[in-house]
Amino acid sequence: MKFIKTPVKGMCDMLPSDMRLREHILSMIKETYSSYGFMQIETPVMEHIENLTSKQGGDNEKLIFKVMKRGAELSRALAKGDGELADNGLRYDLTVPLARYYANNKEKLPAPFKALQMGNVWRADNPQKGRFRQFTQCDIDILGDETNLAEIELITATADMLSRIFAEVQITDFTVHINDRQILRAAALQAGFAEEEIGSVLISLDKFDKIGLEGIKKELFENGYDAGAVERYLGLYTEIPENISAAAFCEGISPEYLPQGTVEALDEILSCVRPMLNPGVKIVFDPTLVRGMGYYTGPIFEVSIDDYNFSIAGGGRYDKMIGKFSGQDVCASGFSIGFERIVTILKDHMENPFQISENNVAFLIEKRVPMERRQEIFARAKELRAAGTTVTIQPMKKNVKRQVELLEAEGYTKFEKVYEK
Amino acid sequence: MKFIKTPVKGMCDMLPSDMRLREHILSMIKETYSSYGFMQIETPVMEHIENLTSKQGGDNEKLIFKVMKRGAELSRALAKGDGELADNGLRYDLTVPLARYYANNKEKLPAPFKALQMGNVWRADNPQKGRFRQFTQCDIDILGDETNLAEIELITATADMLSRIFAEVQITDFTVHINDRQILRAAALQAGFAEEEIGSVLISLDKFDKIGLEGIKKELFENGYDAGAVERYLGLYTEIPENISAAAFCEGISPEYLPQGTVEALDEILSCVRPMLNPGVKIVFDPTLVRGMGYYTGPIFEVSIDDYNFSIAGGGRYDKMIGKFSGQDVCASGFSIGFERIVTILKDHMENPFQISENNVAFLIEKRVPMERRQEIFARAKELRAAGTTVTIQPMKKNVKRQVELLEAEGYTKFEKVYEK
Repeated sequence: MKFIKTPVKGMCDMLPSDMRLREHILSMIKETYSSYGFMQIETPVMEHIENLTSKQGGDNEKLIFKVMKRGAELSRALAKGDGELADNGLRYDLTVPLARYYANNKEKLPAPFKALQMGNVWRADNPQKGRFRQFTQCDIDILGDETNLAEIELITATADMLSRIFAEVQITDFTVHINDRQILRAAALQAGFAEEEIGSVLISLDKFDKIGLEGIKKELFENGYDAGAVERYLGLYTEIPENISAAAFCEGISPEYLPQGTVEALDEILSCVRPMLNPGVKIVFDPTLVRGMGYYTGPIFEVSIDDYNFSIAGGGRYDKMIGKFSGQDVCASGFSIGFERIVTILKDHMENPFQISENNVAFLIEKRVPMERRQEIFARAKELRAAGTTVTIQPMKKNVKRQVELLEAEGYTKFEKVYEK
Repeated sequence: MKFIKTPVKGMCDMLPSDMRLREHILSMIKETYSSYGFMQIETPVMEHIENLTSKQGGDNEKLIFKVMKRGAELSRALAKGDGELADNGLRYDLTVPLARYYANNKEKLPAPFKALQMGNVWRADNPQKGRFRQFTQCDIDILGDETNLAEIELITATADMLSRIFAEVQITDFTVHINDRQILRAAALQAGFAEEEIGSVLISLDKFDKIGLEGIKKELFENGYDAGAVERYLGLYTEIPENISAAAFCEGISPEYLPQGTVEALDEILSCVRPMLNPGVKIVFDPTLVRGMGYYTGPIFEVSIDDYNFSIAGGGRYDKMIGKFSGQDVCASGFSIGFERIVTILKDHMENPFQISENNVAFLIEKRVPMERRQEIFARAKELRAAGTTVTIQPMKKNVKRQVELLEAEGYTKFEKVYEK
């Protein structure tokens, strides 16, 4: 019989020490967001293939794990030759399922609705270090709040959560970057780009951290844009003072390109969030922040941390997306937390595998110990467990030294060996 | 754009109140088993299709959701015409993944290894009331312990866990049934059945609760078994005294059919577990308990509860199965907890949706409230949250009465409305 020991390509078996750390982080995420009124929900891991391929997921749609039709339906599809063989697919993010969930359950949910999702997503990506085909995402979303209260709650809660988790490894500093899609759009229009060119221009600006202004300039020229527009555009992003406010950045931009109140609402988010942050945590207006997904319509935000070249959380307002799915517009703003990246950072800063408790007790019982003696051990274990101690009762192995070592690695510190006499 | 609002057939969207209850039960399961030294592990939801179709999963193998190959591999398989189109499948239980996991990670794990798995499984079954295509299972398994210490720990821990969970709805009574595959085998041999007939005979005995001895007799006759053997077999199961011990039941069975020590080991499990149980919980030797899966080799057990015609947990020893997978024999015993059934029983006994806390606070803020006033609210919310209270801050809706009602349904009891002046 052919049997394959390794997990499916790009996916991981979680060892007990992995799980302890992951469960600990998940419970801190859950606890913090709960205290902000986010309510945990869950959707099936599978979605209708039609929903997953509806062009809202960007490049992720190419990476879907498709689930085959079964029985007669599969036979029909195969007979047709060019039929769709899959009826479902594994979700590649938590946003598409949320849109479907909200359309399906809206009547039963509070409005605004503050959702917390923690779950796996799957992408048939090329596996590489730190990138897996099954990984955990945590998303918080506020649906039905058109005001910037939503962004203030999302950012405050997320900064609080990260501060609490990182405190365990003495990391206090990280930065929340914030910008607004309306400001990005207005800047491009002000420079002289046409409405339909904005998407492509933003793809170049998004590379600011990697290729700098010179690289962006080169790319925009290569793409054949008007030289005057390119020069004016780069002028807007040249020599920006540190800690510039949105209002100051937008001074040169004509009000006709910028919906009224955009700048004020963004600066208000900064003013309201800033006093709520722990020492070491910063929030800054970052005019070059773009965020990849096309569906954002308002404020966008991202969390970065020194020494790591990836963001650990990102999100924004996406007022049109749920409407595109469900036919009914629902304003929405959300934050996606890079759970696996948080795990990576914590592991980098821990000397030993994570332990929940340090006082675990192991009773190792020799084979011929009589039943009465065993019953005494069971009774003692019961008392210890009731008092909150982890207790394992196991037969003593021939190689008891190795048995003890392996238990020590899992947090056992007290061993009681029970012999026949 | 075609968009389907409902979840995939046979699968559920979990509302916040569902999730609160499920997460609460999961955390009690985790907490209890942790205190017995079970270590949580996790495997990917997908397994190699070869592993899933290796004839260890019984009828469940017919119900696999298969995951399609991708890219060039899919094209090749399609071109071949009769090629296998799937390379992976969603797991239909947690036992096959555990066997693969143990084969893959044994060197890094304590021996014996006490595993706790909590996760979803998928079966393309015909959906019906209470039966879903995605559902949660909780399995505990002890690998590498050939003694009945394993069964004592599995049963004690599970009874403890169920007592704690059911206490919340004032259920104290349930029964653990226990038997041994060796006794079932010996009884059939004693009656005169051949070794190769035992599997089929046990399938009939397994229906004892549904069709009674008369029904079993009829079925055995229909299956063409020797009349003498059938009569002798049924004689063994007729007028069994309540609370019979394994030793008493086996009195008439020749020692040549029964491995030495089987009966003593089973009665020892009963003697050791009984004093550990909470009042109301019983453990009984049940000579008609069979359990469906073919892979059991020793003690088998099941938990039943009054007023419900389904078992809420079941398991047994399966010393040969991991070896069949991995080529290396590993003794093992496990208990599978019917998580969805526990949820059903708790819901049946709760008058209101489950709430975590009763003192949640909602600030409802009118649109034009000035920023300074909002900042005061944020600061107060921060204090409340730090003190453990759940606080939500939301814009006040036009229909504030409905807004409050929906929040009340989710556990909010204190509302503070903040007006412009």
